[in-house]
Amino acid sequence: MASKSVNVAVIGAGVVGSSFLKQLSSVKSQISYNLILLSTSKKALISKDYKPLKLGSCETDLAQTTEAPLSLEKLLDFLKQSPAPVIFVDNTSNESIANFYPQLVQNGISIATPNKKAFSSSLALWNELFSGNESSGLVYHEATVGAGLPIIGSLNDMVQTGDRIQKIEGIFSGSLSFILNKFSSTSPSDYKFSDIVKTAKDLGYTEPDPRDDLNGLDVARKVTILARIAGFKVESPTSFPVHSLIPKQLESVASGAEYLEKLPEYDQEMEQLKKEAAAENKVLRFVGKVDFPNNSVSVGIEKYDFSHPFASLTGSDNVVSIQSMRYPSPLIVQGAGAGADVTAAGVLADVFKIAQRL
Amino acid sequence: MASKSVNVAVIGAGVVGSSFLKQLSSVKSQISYNLILLSTSKKALISKDYKPLKLGSCETDLAQTTEAPLSLEKLLDFLKQSPAPVIFVDNTSNESIANFYPQLVQNGISIATPNKKAFSSSLALWNELFSGNESSGLVYHEATVGAGLPIIGSLNDMVQTGDRIQKIEGIFSGSLSFILNKFSSTSPSDYKFSDIVKTAKDLGYTEPDPRDDLNGLDVARKVTILARIAGFKVESPTSFPVHSLIPKQLESVASGAEYLEKLPEYDQEMEQLKKEAAAENKVLRFVGKVDFPNNSVSVGIEKYDFSHPFASLTGSDNVVSIQSMRYPSPLIVQGAGAGADVTAAGVLADVFKIAQRL
Ligand SMILES: NC(=O)c1ccc[n+]([C@@H]2O[C@H](COP(=O)([O-])OP(=O)(O)OC[C@H]3O[C@@H](n4cnc5c(N)ncnc54)[C@H](OP(=O)(O)O)[C@@H]3O)[C@@H](O)[C@H]2O)c1
Ligand SMILES: NC(=O)c1ccc[n+]([C@@H]2O[C@H](COP(=O)([O-])OP(=O)(O)OC[C@H]3O[C@@H](n4cnc5c(N)ncnc54)[C@H](OP(=O)(O)O)[C@@H]3O)[C@@H](O)[C@H]2O)c1
Repeated sequence: MASKSVNVAVIGAGVVGSSFLKQLSSVKSQISYNLILLSTSKKALISKDYKPLKLGSCETDLAQTTEAPLSLEKLLDFLKQSPAPVIFVDNTSNESIANFYPQLVQNGISIATPNKKAFSSSLALWNELFSGNESSGLVYHEATVGAGLPIIGSLNDMVQTGDRIQKIEGIFSGSLSFILNKFSSTSPSDYKFSDIVKTAKDLGYTEPDPRDDLNGLDVARKVTILARIAGFKVESPTSFPVHSLIPKQLESVASGAEYLEKLPEYDQEMEQLKKEAAAENKVLRFVGKVDFPNNSVSVGIEKYDFSHPFASLTGSDNVVSIQSMRYPSPLIVQGAGAGADVTAAGVLADVFKIAQRL
Repeated sequence: MASKSVNVAVIGAGVVGSSFLKQLSSVKSQISYNLILLSTSKKALISKDYKPLKLGSCETDLAQTTEAPLSLEKLLDFLKQSPAPVIFVDNTSNESIANFYPQLVQNGISIATPNKKAFSSSLALWNELFSGNESSGLVYHEATVGAGLPIIGSLNDMVQTGDRIQKIEGIFSGSLSFILNKFSSTSPSDYKFSDIVKTAKDLGYTEPDPRDDLNGLDVARKVTILARIAGFKVESPTSFPVHSLIPKQLESVASGAEYLEKLPEYDQEMEQLKKEAAAENKVLRFVGKVDFPNNSVSVGIEKYDFSHPFASLTGSDNVVSIQSMRYPSPLIVQGAGAGADVTAAGVLADVFKIAQRL
C-alpha cells in the first residue's frame, strides 16, 4: 500500500503552535506528515533537503539552533521547491504573514491557520484568497472562529449545498462570555461588573490589558469572517457598528492597570442595563450578529430571554446560532472557543482535510 | 481550467432522495456531478454510455420509464465500468443494499448515505467498511445521526486529532424530542403523555405506528454509530440496554391504532416519573448515552436539571453533548435532526467532500 506524503511547514510555536506540534507527533494515519520547517520570529529549523525533521524533539531543537528565520520571499522559494505538496501552518497572529497568503496559494501551497488576520481584513484580500483555480493551494481556517468548534465548516457546508442564511448570532469571546455569564444570569447575582473583569484578568481569561477584549474588535473580526462565508460582503471589521464595553473616558487611559482601577466608577451604567434586562426576564450577553433581512452586521450587548440557549451559558463557552431557510429553528454549536488544545485540534483537523484532498 | 467530473448513482427517490436531486441540480461548483443512474425498487434510469442524465427532469423521466432496476451485482458491474470515479448515494433504508456496501467500496466506489443500516448492524460489517486501503472507495454518512447537523464529522475530527471521548449524550429522535419537550418542561404543563403521542402522530412527527419511534430502536442505532466512532466496540444495537417507552402490555397489540387507544390507561406511570423529576427541578428526556468511564452504552429516559441545555429544548430539535479530554465542558450541537432538506443537505455535503478527495 503506497502511502501518501505531505510536507508541513509550521510558523509559530507559542501556545497553539506548541500544542499543534505535540498533536501532530502522535498522529496515526495512512498519510505521512513530514515537518520540513519550524520557525518563530527569531529562529528557524529548516530541512534544506526536505527530509522530515524530528517531530518529537523539534521544539528543543528549535531552542538550540542559531539559524535565523527566512524572509517570506525566501520561505516561498523553499516551499516551492518541495518535492511533495506543502501545507503551510500559520500559528501566529502576524499580519504580514497573512498578507502573504495569496502568494503562497497562487504557488500551490495550501494553508491551515487559526490566524484571523487574512480573513477579517480587507475584502480584497479575502477575494484574492478564495478565487483560486484548480492548481491553487487550499485554504482552511476553522480555528479562526470558536477555535475547534465546528462552525466554519458547518456554515460552508450549508452555503455550498444551497441553504440561505438568515441570521448568525453568537458569543465569540471566551473572556466576554465569562464576564457576562457571571454578571448577568437567570438567577440573581450581586457581582459588580468591575470586580468580574478583574477576576477574569486574574484567571488569565483576558488579554494582559482587558480592554483588548472589551473593545469588541476581536469579536468584530470573527463576525466579519462568518458574514463573508454567508455571502455578506463586509468591507472590513471596522465597517459596521461595534459597541465597545469600555467607558469612553477609559479608552485613552495609559494602562490596563489604570483602566481596572477606574472601572468601578462606571459600574452603575452596567448595573442599570442589567436591572432593565432582569425586569423583562432577560440577561445581557455580548454578541456578534449578522442579520440578512435587516442587511446589518453588528457587535455589542444584547438582551436574551431566560429560556434562550445563550442565557444558560456558563463558564467561558462560545456559542453560535445559525438560522437559515432550512433551519428556521436555528442550528446551535456551543463549547470551549479558546484554549491551546482545542485550537490546535481545529488546525490539525484542517491539515488532515487538506492532505486528503492533495 | 480543466474541471473534474464525478459520476453519481442515486438509489431511492423518496422524501430525502427527491430533495437531494433538487439540491444537486442547483449546485454551482468547479466539479461536475453527473447523474448516471437513478433507481427505486421498481424502476431505474440508467445511462448506459455514462453520459449525464438530465437532472432537471430525472424524477419525471423515472416516473415515465418502464426500465426495471438492476440487481446489486449488475449495478456493481455497471458502476465498475464507469470512466469517471463514482459516488453511490443510497437514499433508502434498505438492509440488502447496506450489506452490499463492502463490495462497492472494495471496487473503489465511494458511498454517501443517510441510511443507518450498514453502520448500526454487526460490528463485522462496520469493520469491513472502514478497513479499506488507498484504492478503496470512501464512506461518508453524516446524515445517519442528526440529519444535516455536524455531529459525525465533528466526532471523527476529535478522535482523529487524538482527543479522548468521555461521554456522549443526546436526543436523537425528533418525535421523542417533541413528545418529551411538551410533556416535561421547565414551566409546569398539564398535558397527558398519551395525548401528546397522538398529537405527534397527527402532526406527522412519528412513524405511522408510533411504537416504531417509542421502542427506542432507531435511537439505539444512532448511538451505536456514535459509540463506534468514539472507539467503543458495540456489537449491535441490541447488545446494550434500550428502555422502550411502550408499556409491556402494549408491545404486542395488533396495531398502532389499538396502542393509541389503550395508551391513556398507562398515563399514570409517566405522570409519576414527571412529578418525581419536577420535585428535583428536573425534566425528563429520552436520550442515548455512551459513557466511557462507566464502560456503558444505553438508551432510555433520563432526568436533567432545569439549567441543563437539554431542558430548554423546544420543538422537535435533536441535540448532542460530547464531553472529552479536550472538552471537559461539553461540545454541544443542536438543531433540526430530521426533515427532507436538512437530511439531503447532509448527504450532499458528504458528496462534495468525497468528490474533493477523488
Ligand atoms: N490561544 C488560543 O486559545 C487561540 C484560540 C483561537 C485562535 N488563536 C489564534 O492562534 C494564533 C496563535 O495564538 P497563540 O495563543 O499560540 O499565540 P502566542 O502564544 O503568542 O504564539 C505566537 C507564536 O507566533 C510566533 N510569531 C509571531 N510573529 C511571528 C513572525 N513574524 N514570524 C514567525 N513567527 C512569529 C511567535 O514567536 P516569537 O516568540 O518569536 O514572537 C510565537 O511562537 C493567533 O492567531 C491566535 O489568534 C488562539
Ligand atoms: N426523512 C428524514 O427526515 C430522514 C432523516 C435522517 C435520515 N433519513 C434516512 O434517509 C433514508 C431515506 O429516507 P426517506 O424518508 O427518504 O424514505 P422514503 O421516503 O421511504 O424513500 C425511500 C426510497 O428508497 C427507495 N427504495 C427502498 N428500497 C429500495 C430498494 N431495495 N432498491 C431501490 N430503491 C429502494 C424507495 O423506492 P420505492 O418507492 O420503489 O420503494 C424510495 O424511493 C432512510 O435511510 C432514512 O432513515 C431520513
